[in-house]
Amino acid sequence: ALAKDASLGFRVLPTYRPDKALRAGNEGFPAYVEALSIAAGASIGNTNELIDALIKRMDYFHDQGGRVSDHALDTVPFQVPDRKLADAAFTDAMAGKALDALQFEHYRTTILIALGAAYHERGWVQQYHMNAARNNNTRLFKAFGADVGGDSTTDTLVADKLLHLLDAQDSQGKLPKTILYSLNPAANYILATAAGTFQGDTPGKVQFGSAWWFNDQLDGMRDQMKTLANVGALGNFVGMLTDSRSLVSYPRHEYFRRIVCGLIGGWVENGEYPNDEEALAAIVRGICYENAKAYFGF
Amino acid sequence: ALAKDASLGFRVLPTYRPDKALRAGNEGFPAYVEALSIAAGASIGNTNELIDALIKRMDYFHDQGGRVSDHALDTVPFQVPDRKLADAAFTDAMAGKALDALQFEHYRTTILIALGAAYHERGWVQQYHMNAARNNNTRLFKAFGADVGGDSTTDTLVADKLLHLLDAQDSQGKLPKTILYSLNPAANYILATAAGTFQGDTPGKVQFGSAWWFNDQLDGMRDQMKTLANVGALGNFVGMLTDSRSLVSYPRHEYFRRIVCGLIGGWVENGEYPNDEEALAAIVRGICYENAKAYFGF
Amino acid sequence: ALAKDASLGFRVLPTYRPDKALRAGNEGFPAYVEALSIAAGASIGNTNELIDALIKRMDYFHDQGGRVSDHALDTVPFQVPDRKLADAAFTDAMAGKALDALQFEHYRTTILIALGAAYHERGWVQQYHMNAARNNNTRLFKAFGADVGGDSTTDTLVADKLLHLLDAQDSQGKLPKTILYSLNPAANYILATAAGTFQGDTPGKVQFGSAWWFNDQLDGMRDQMKTLANVGALGNFVGMLTDSRSLVSYPRHEYFRRIVCGLIGGWVENGEYPNDEEALAAIVRGICYENAKAYFGF
Repeated sequence: ALAKDASLGFRVLPTYRPDKALRAGNEGFPAYVEALSIAAGASIGNTNELIDALIKRMDYFHDQGGRVSDHALDTVPFQVPDRKLADAAFTDAMAGKALDALQFEHYRTTILIALGAAYHERGWVQQYHMNAARNNNTRLFKAFGADVGGDSTTDTLVADKLLHLLDAQDSQGKLPKTILYSLNPAANYILATAAGTFQGDTPGKVQFGSAWWFNDQLDGMRDQMKTLANVGALGNFVGMLTDSRSLVSYPRHEYFRRIVCGLIGGWVENGEYPNDEEALAAIVRGICYENAKAYFGF
Repeated sequence: ALAKDASLGFRVLPTYRPDKALRAGNEGFPAYVEALSIAAGASIGNTNELIDALIKRMDYFHDQGGRVSDHALDTVPFQVPDRKLADAAFTDAMAGKALDALQFEHYRTTILIALGAAYHERGWVQQYHMNAARNNNTRLFKAFGADVGGDSTTDTLVADKLLHLLDAQDSQGKLPKTILYSLNPAANYILATAAGTFQGDTPGKVQFGSAWWFNDQLDGMRDQMKTLANVGALGNFVGMLTDSRSLVSYPRHEYFRRIVCGLIGGWVENGEYPNDEEALAAIVRGICYENAKAYFGF
Repeated sequence: ALAKDASLGFRVLPTYRPDKALRAGNEGFPAYVEALSIAAGASIGNTNELIDALIKRMDYFHDQGGRVSDHALDTVPFQVPDRKLADAAFTDAMAGKALDALQFEHYRTTILIALGAAYHERGWVQQYHMNAARNNNTRLFKAFGADVGGDSTTDTLVADKLLHLLDAQDSQGKLPKTILYSLNPAANYILATAAGTFQGDTPGKVQFGSAWWFNDQLDGMRDQMKTLANVGALGNFVGMLTDSRSLVSYPRHEYFRRIVCGLIGGWVENGEYPNDEEALAAIVRGICYENAKAYFGF
């Protein structure tokens, strides 16, 4: 509807968030698969067909201007994917049976790698959001449902499986542009150095993403950018993204930009960075606007 | 004896520390259970009876003015508790047999949830101290015994089991006021956000506790309070507690208060906090005295 | 060759790095064992004989002035060592078979403890480098080989096994001087407090080592030294070491020394440290030169 409104001075583009497809074993999974099957106009009887349907929807999002996906990897899965084991998880999930943990991991890995390849073919950016524990308070959940403040940070280990998951995509030449976020600031160096390991084609192809959710405050933002500056290339940073759908989130972009400038300005004042206004302006403009524009290709 | 001394201008209240009851499998466990049985005037033949005896002693501490317990959770246990498996661990421990790890976890979870409910009924505060590795140096231990400087910080994961342990207490409406401490500063955001997930009745019901042991210094205290201010409500913080029994520990409260004032004053100087002396004084007085007074209910 | 050049105004001493002996199961392992056997002039048919050959080479390094070893413990192994299980891993590795994970852990523990004892007898220093994930990018590895920028930081847990590994050496009175490094700054307190647990004979016998690799920058160095100052004895710190073989690495020692002085000077300016130039100079000279000279015994 917004796209048809010629009077708008801006564009609103959709983000592709296929988390429900990865949550085989959740109560609503069979109903989700049915809804997906109807939306995609294709029957879904196994993991392959599920992936095909997801890619059809991806193309629909692409036609609406979507260029970004988002995955909530509360835990990071990885197994060298075996379609049979993935299909066994899918079949159990559709039958409402409890899933075997290993089969479920094959299922998740299979889909993530396949979607990654499809993102890569379309020039999309995939985002992985890690280390969230959701709906921890059962009393709150029963009273008000999901996503109502009962979430927190986890210390689940991410390095080993994340590196394998990225490598599996990269080694077949189909790793898309990727942004890595963790809710656990203790993982900052893990993500920043993992990103450095998988560069290529685009500047800053794999990015250590901006401070997310609980970390989206002065200390968290400074830590994220200092980490990135210490072990990566701050100048390629695409800056702040928010997955918030609330209007009051937008001023946080201004807050972020002020923190970027305060951080860099402090380095200049300390003599740790050249006092070269032209070079500094290029970095700041890049982080605040130009890098994102080039990277996302909207 | 101190309680009967009318000339004292202060009160000394006992803290309830039932760690030995949870350490089934330790060498001294059967002797401890026997001593507990005599103190409580009740026979102890299974987990239920052990819990009853612990609660009798809790009431005794309550009569002496005790309102606080302390648990050394060097690792955090959680299993949906099964009394039969808990009893199997108890029986093996009393017979001096090696414990099955899963049964031991049921045993610890069963007792922690039962004690939590009893604390809640009495309006007590429970404290969980996590991530200590104790008596790591066998040579030192053999020469001088336990707790002589052979302890260090661990990176044992805490989020998943801690969240389930708190939720198990909360979901039956029997989560007491709780303070969470970790010896590992990398867990600061884990504890601060976990605390935020289980609020209710009392302001700051579940608290991220003050910097503990190795963290009880300038940087550690500042990090703990910045984390709390970033993701929780600093104004509800009950401030510094020490489990130290040494007289030289008391000046650390003054040290803590200066660091609180230095931190908040720095925010004001940076323009990050309103320069409103009345509001600031209320926060500082709260952290240094009033919050603890209200929270512990001494 | 350099040792024979009388015109040199300095000495170049070798570091002993037996990682390949620990990497049973790697493709090149049998060839390495054969080369070692030739160099040591002894046949190698089991773990014991491998250790004997390694110690012969250690003596050769000792004769050339070597006093330091270096171990890349990408993961820290520990099992109460069982020679039979260690030998089973060795035999499988020599036959090119896949190793059993537990046997491999016995193998690694057996060798590390035996080498530790030999270092101790010779007054050497052993270094443990932890939390590196190497050659994560298969595409890069296939094109250019190992150690070409495809490495990153891991969050592998270290505390429990490291404490047992050090204790196993210490409890037989054969723990050598040891320096602990982690690529993961979230492990700083783990290493600094573990080091504090195993002191004796030499000042700062077990050291929390200087900021390593990705951490070898302003923030990383400051964090490492603040952690050490908070929970250890900064005055015993042997300062910066680099395992780099590149000439451009040497200026980093000057960079390190400036950061040491900046950090300590900042404490003095804040009134957190006595403004006593003699005492301060002793600390700075110690960290920058004297401590290393005494500790390594070159």
